[in-house]
Amino acid sequence: MTQDSRLPVAVLGATGMVGQYAIARLSHHPWFEVVALAASERHEGSPYKACCSWWLPGDIPPAAAELSLLACKPDQLPTGVQLVFSALPAGPAREIEAAFAQAGKAVFSNARAYRLDPTVPLLAADINPWQLSALEGQRAAHGWTGSIVAQANCTTTILATALAPLQAFGIRRVLTVTYQSVSGVGYPGVPSLAILGNVVPFIRGEEECVQQDLVTLLGEWDGGHGFRPAAFPTSALCARVPTVRGHLASVSLELERCVVHEQLIAAWERYVPETVGWELPSAPRQTLAYVRDDARPQPALDWQTGNGMTVSVGRLQPCPALGENGYSFWVVGDTLGRGAVGGSLLNAELFVARGFLREMEEARELALHRGET
Amino acid sequence: MTQDSRLPVAVLGATGMVGQYAIARLSHHPWFEVVALAASERHEGSPYKACCSWWLPGDIPPAAAELSLLACKPDQLPTGVQLVFSALPAGPAREIEAAFAQAGKAVFSNARAYRLDPTVPLLAADINPWQLSALEGQRAAHGWTGSIVAQANCTTTILATALAPLQAFGIRRVLTVTYQSVSGVGYPGVPSLAILGNVVPFIRGEEECVQQDLVTLLGEWDGGHGFRPAAFPTSALCARVPTVRGHLASVSLELERCVVHEQLIAAWERYVPETVGWELPSAPRQTLAYVRDDARPQPALDWQTGNGMTVSVGRLQPCPALGENGYSFWVVGDTLGRGAVGGSLLNAELFVARGFLREMEEARELALHRGET
Amino acid sequence: MTQDSRLPVAVLGATGMVGQYAIARLSHHPWFEVVALAASERHEGSPYKACCSWWLPGDIPPAAAELSLLACKPDQLPTGVQLVFSALPAGPAREIEAAFAQAGKAVFSNARAYRLDPTVPLLAADINPWQLSALEGQRAAHGWTGSIVAQANCTTTILATALAPLQAFGIRRVLTVTYQSVSGVGYPGVPSLAILGNVVPFIRGEEECVQQDLVTLLGEWDGGHGFRPAAFPTSALCARVPTVRGHLASVSLELERCVVHEQLIAAWERYVPETVGWELPSAPRQTLAYVRDDARPQPALDWQTGNGMTVSVGRLQPCPALGENGYSFWVVGDTLGRGAVGGSLLNAELFVARGFLREMEEARELALHRGET
Amino acid sequence: MTQDSRLPVAVLGATGMVGQYAIARLSHHPWFEVVALAASERHEGSPYKACCSWWLPGDIPPAAAELSLLACKPDQLPTGVQLVFSALPAGPAREIEAAFAQAGKAVFSNARAYRLDPTVPLLAADINPWQLSALEGQRAAHGWTGSIVAQANCTTTILATALAPLQAFGIRRVLTVTYQSVSGVGYPGVPSLAILGNVVPFIRGEEECVQQDLVTLLGEWDGGHGFRPAAFPTSALCARVPTVRGHLASVSLELERCVVHEQLIAAWERYVPETVGWELPSAPRQTLAYVRDDARPQPALDWQTGNGMTVSVGRLQPCPALGENGYSFWVVGDTLGRGAVGGSLLNAELFVARGFLREMEEARELALHRGET
Repeated sequence: MTQDSRLPVAVLGATGMVGQYAIARLSHHPWFEVVALAASERHEGSPYKACCSWWLPGDIPPAAAELSLLACKPDQLPTGVQLVFSALPAGPAREIEAAFAQAGKAVFSNARAYRLDPTVPLLAADINPWQLSALEGQRAAHGWTGSIVAQANCTTTILATALAPLQAFGIRRVLTVTYQSVSGVGYPGVPSLAILGNVVPFIRGEEECVQQDLVTLLGEWDGGHGFRPAAFPTSALCARVPTVRGHLASVSLELERCVVHEQLIAAWERYVPETVGWELPSAPRQTLAYVRDDARPQPALDWQTGNGMTVSVGRLQPCPALGENGYSFWVVGDTLGRGAVGGSLLNAELFVARGFLREMEEARELALHRGET
Repeated sequence: MTQDSRLPVAVLGATGMVGQYAIARLSHHPWFEVVALAASERHEGSPYKACCSWWLPGDIPPAAAELSLLACKPDQLPTGVQLVFSALPAGPAREIEAAFAQAGKAVFSNARAYRLDPTVPLLAADINPWQLSALEGQRAAHGWTGSIVAQANCTTTILATALAPLQAFGIRRVLTVTYQSVSGVGYPGVPSLAILGNVVPFIRGEEECVQQDLVTLLGEWDGGHGFRPAAFPTSALCARVPTVRGHLASVSLELERCVVHEQLIAAWERYVPETVGWELPSAPRQTLAYVRDDARPQPALDWQTGNGMTVSVGRLQPCPALGENGYSFWVVGDTLGRGAVGGSLLNAELFVARGFLREMEEARELALHRGET
Repeated sequence: MTQDSRLPVAVLGATGMVGQYAIARLSHHPWFEVVALAASERHEGSPYKACCSWWLPGDIPPAAAELSLLACKPDQLPTGVQLVFSALPAGPAREIEAAFAQAGKAVFSNARAYRLDPTVPLLAADINPWQLSALEGQRAAHGWTGSIVAQANCTTTILATALAPLQAFGIRRVLTVTYQSVSGVGYPGVPSLAILGNVVPFIRGEEECVQQDLVTLLGEWDGGHGFRPAAFPTSALCARVPTVRGHLASVSLELERCVVHEQLIAAWERYVPETVGWELPSAPRQTLAYVRDDARPQPALDWQTGNGMTVSVGRLQPCPALGENGYSFWVVGDTLGRGAVGGSLLNAELFVARGFLREMEEARELALHRGET
Repeated sequence: MTQDSRLPVAVLGATGMVGQYAIARLSHHPWFEVVALAASERHEGSPYKACCSWWLPGDIPPAAAELSLLACKPDQLPTGVQLVFSALPAGPAREIEAAFAQAGKAVFSNARAYRLDPTVPLLAADINPWQLSALEGQRAAHGWTGSIVAQANCTTTILATALAPLQAFGIRRVLTVTYQSVSGVGYPGVPSLAILGNVVPFIRGEEECVQQDLVTLLGEWDGGHGFRPAAFPTSALCARVPTVRGHLASVSLELERCVVHEQLIAAWERYVPETVGWELPSAPRQTLAYVRDDARPQPALDWQTGNGMTVSVGRLQPCPALGENGYSFWVVGDTLGRGAVGGSLLNAELFVARGFLREMEEARELALHRGET
């Protein structure tokens, strides 16, 4: 795909933190070109740069800065926009994303609105592309001519990526305890008065979300029977720490088998992501990096690895409290890269590369031809 | 014991962070009066206020400010000083504390030098006063006419205090993951470049230390056979976070029995510390507080509870990964109060209240009378 | 005034940060007793503890925790409440405070609503009690049977306190540059994403406010002609830094005369506050402290001095860019103590001590007697 | 100059923070190639990666990682290395840098050792290339066959860059107040206990240094009479804040003339750096950027501009306390880019581009030919 034939895409929720980062990452994307930005109706018609309090280092990408903001309505999109990235908050996402799917768009969502819908893929392209099979039932269930593909929450995506290579050894149970940065909640998000020089061991809904999504992400596709979540029990304790970017988590787990540490390290370092062979632009050189340093991974040092798409693992050691097959390690991933925007772009890239977009268009044309819709 | 008859005490390592806090807490202590401060030899003879970069809010207590610093040698102590608080770093502590014990002083140490010595009580007065029985073997083993009583490390003391009331339900295994503040390492300690906006999931020696000391603190005294550490396996993962004061830790544990949450909460709230009845001045009104708030305990909000001596527990919930009897909760305690200086003072108070100081003096007089030493 | 005869008071805006701190400070006040808490109407009738996300260390004072929240309407106050502390945000403050003054209450306000009204004293009791003379014109101007007394903004109050003793030397010009903590804006206030590891050199309206209020606070009462603001030009540059409590500011100023440093230091140390002799409970032992330490005042070390009521000054040095009579120094004061709640309490105490409350009551009774209102 | 003909360079003090950043920036430099790393003698012979606690995001550049560390002695350098970047601390720098200059190397120093030596250029290539004229007297004064060129301290370089374009309007006086990040002092540097949630309004020697170096940097070359420092008086107040990267400073200044704001903004935006035309690889597209945003420049948002080489200015406004021609504004620059390593590279690039390196070699060859040295 050449620069000239980049696919036009839209970003919903363009003024928020995730929306801004989506615009930043898309500003030099080889396949996609941002041609439309949508936000809350009160900004409709204003130039993006006038409505957006840009919080990323550097300036608003010039092409985006001058775009007039649209309302989040499918009929406002310029002709030809088939791909839509949604950075909407959970509240409005449910209705708006459905409207765009209804209108034939392929929506890639960072919201939690459809994560539990069994016909919406909870996709982390590198580890569970079979989730795309859920799309088969989506049209029937919802009547959409477009589609919605969901990205799991940031922490869960990062954890699932670190655990995927270990599934070969049989996972019996997982306990994770997190150190989440404030970029996990957007803007304004966490009040500084609550977090400066403090840790808040509570993030509303987060622990349930991690426990639920983790086994979904790591589950498998069982033909006619749909998805089967991974079978191991999971406990997550989630805390907010005064860091800006990158989530850190400890993982303690019991495996089915006793393996030497170098086997686990090799499993991470040699992990072949499921997207291999597709040459996706957002795919990092390495999905997982094992950092051989006593004191890493650390959020500040490791979130940027692989342009925020590589998950860093380190400090593998025995976990005596989980018995002979107990292990613990630490994980760092980028809140907004692998954990949100980057992951969502990768999902969209796989969607396009595997022909889902073309199929969707063909089906629509066929339907149009038949006089449907 | 009245103000007039306060026991004269000395602080070793007076210029460091723990030493400073010891001086601050002792400045209004009803039983003890600081009459001597010792530090490294290069400060010998200088007034304390000239050598100390005071980092606590407010000013140096006036009485301490004017004291001339001594070298850390027993013969420099004013006559009558029998109690010595050691805030020395691990390196010099081994030799210096032994010299003071040898010279007949009762040393209360915050260093790790003697924590693994089976004849040195690893005392947390509120939960394991039986550790004082170790003193019986100390003179024989070391030939000291004085004694050393050790305080466990800050994180371990706080965790042990939170776990003590749960031993009644049988503890099968414990996993803890920590969020430790920078006041846990003294001054200069953690470089700001390493910790600002970051988390460092590694503290040299800390995880081994917690795993080892925790079962010692929670062990029992088995008459002639000495101490038996608690039998459950423990895993500790320790991280440094950018907070100044108070340690936070998550605890996930499996009990022998399945109990309802209110039973565990009652165990904390109604816990009767082993020091009850002695009216020790450093004992807080409540050893443990269960904080009934979704988002607590938090270091910034809870470290000061009970003047830094109460350990705050909260967010009790099931831990599905540890099975039917699995529970998790969060703990906050004061790095320097319960975790160091306050704990050490409580130890010294119990030592004095139970007559150990008098016994030690009597034994020495008797020996003197017999012509020994 | 004894404990038994404490005056009943109300707090408006009780759930916010300033309201909470007012309740905390009032919980052990010898003259005043909180008997009523008011907040936004949606909380009306609920117990305070259920509506308040308490952010201060420790628990809600028990007496306050159980109070039922009132709406901010004068007729909801229990009989006998004449003193009202307003911690309302600027928006609603204008109307609500007027309603209470109209209803005969003496309102002590932390809001900016009436700061520029020449008939409302902008009072910092320790330095400009003559501002109370403005009350003479207040009734005529507004028709209130009660009154409003305003507290200046936190930074300005702290700066004015530090500058007051230097007026004796003639101030020609003042430049101040601030380092303001996040407790200066309440809750939720500054988003953590904006301030963690960052400085924001802009606080909306703050620089104008400091420039304007500073000369008002330091002005004088000129009998029939009303107030005359101080004559020197002032420039303020205001920045938010990632600290929680205490404001720091640099001050560079030119004096009329060339004085030796020790004269200025003596002016601070020997400053006799205008409240002297009234034995006001919120007055600290020292209004101003000069900290003789190379590296102080620092917010973390000095905001608590004098229970947050003492302003700390340090690092006096020449300011060559302002010529021979140029000096610079640094100031720290407590955002919420001297800068807000503490200052407001001191104002109320002076108001009561000097008989304004009694006069106000007498005038009202007289008016009642005459059949007015 | 092509990739194939890159000049071999050495880095002294390679394990420290500045040394690490020099290696990182040089790892993709088109003119220079790091072939030698030197540090303290105890590391001599060990591979760099084994001795360096790498604190920058990402990994050690592979080429540097495997280099064996040398001691800081000129005879250890591989043949052909003529350019040496010194990231040594002030203490050892004086002697070591002289030894390298004596041995014929061109040393570009970040240390303060020779900043006050009138024969050592205090060079900020973009604003004062005439400082290179000082080299004329250097050989005579020191007898070196090589040379030393000094980089001013980080804050001063950033401030001088912002002030240079304003010299056209005549500067009468300058007051600056700084917000310096912890990367300004290297590693371990500022203890976290001192700076977390705090501001320290004191940096040893910094204020004198800024006041002195600023007028030197902004001075002029007066033919036979040497340099004349800029004539305006300067006052600097310097504080350390809890930020990691980027220095922020406020500047208040009085000009000779009253100009409209847009003139000053144009002076920054259209500033033509003195290096223009040389096509130096470290020169940013823009030396100065005026950020038109109420709340900027901010360290976190603006330090990266122009790869850390652009100085960002903003919030220009009148400064009433400095009279009719008084202005104030804020500046952000990268501690380690423009402020240290980047500035030093730019200096070396200009040195090479203008033929000083070739001249130095020719002079040496001539001398050799004549039998000198």
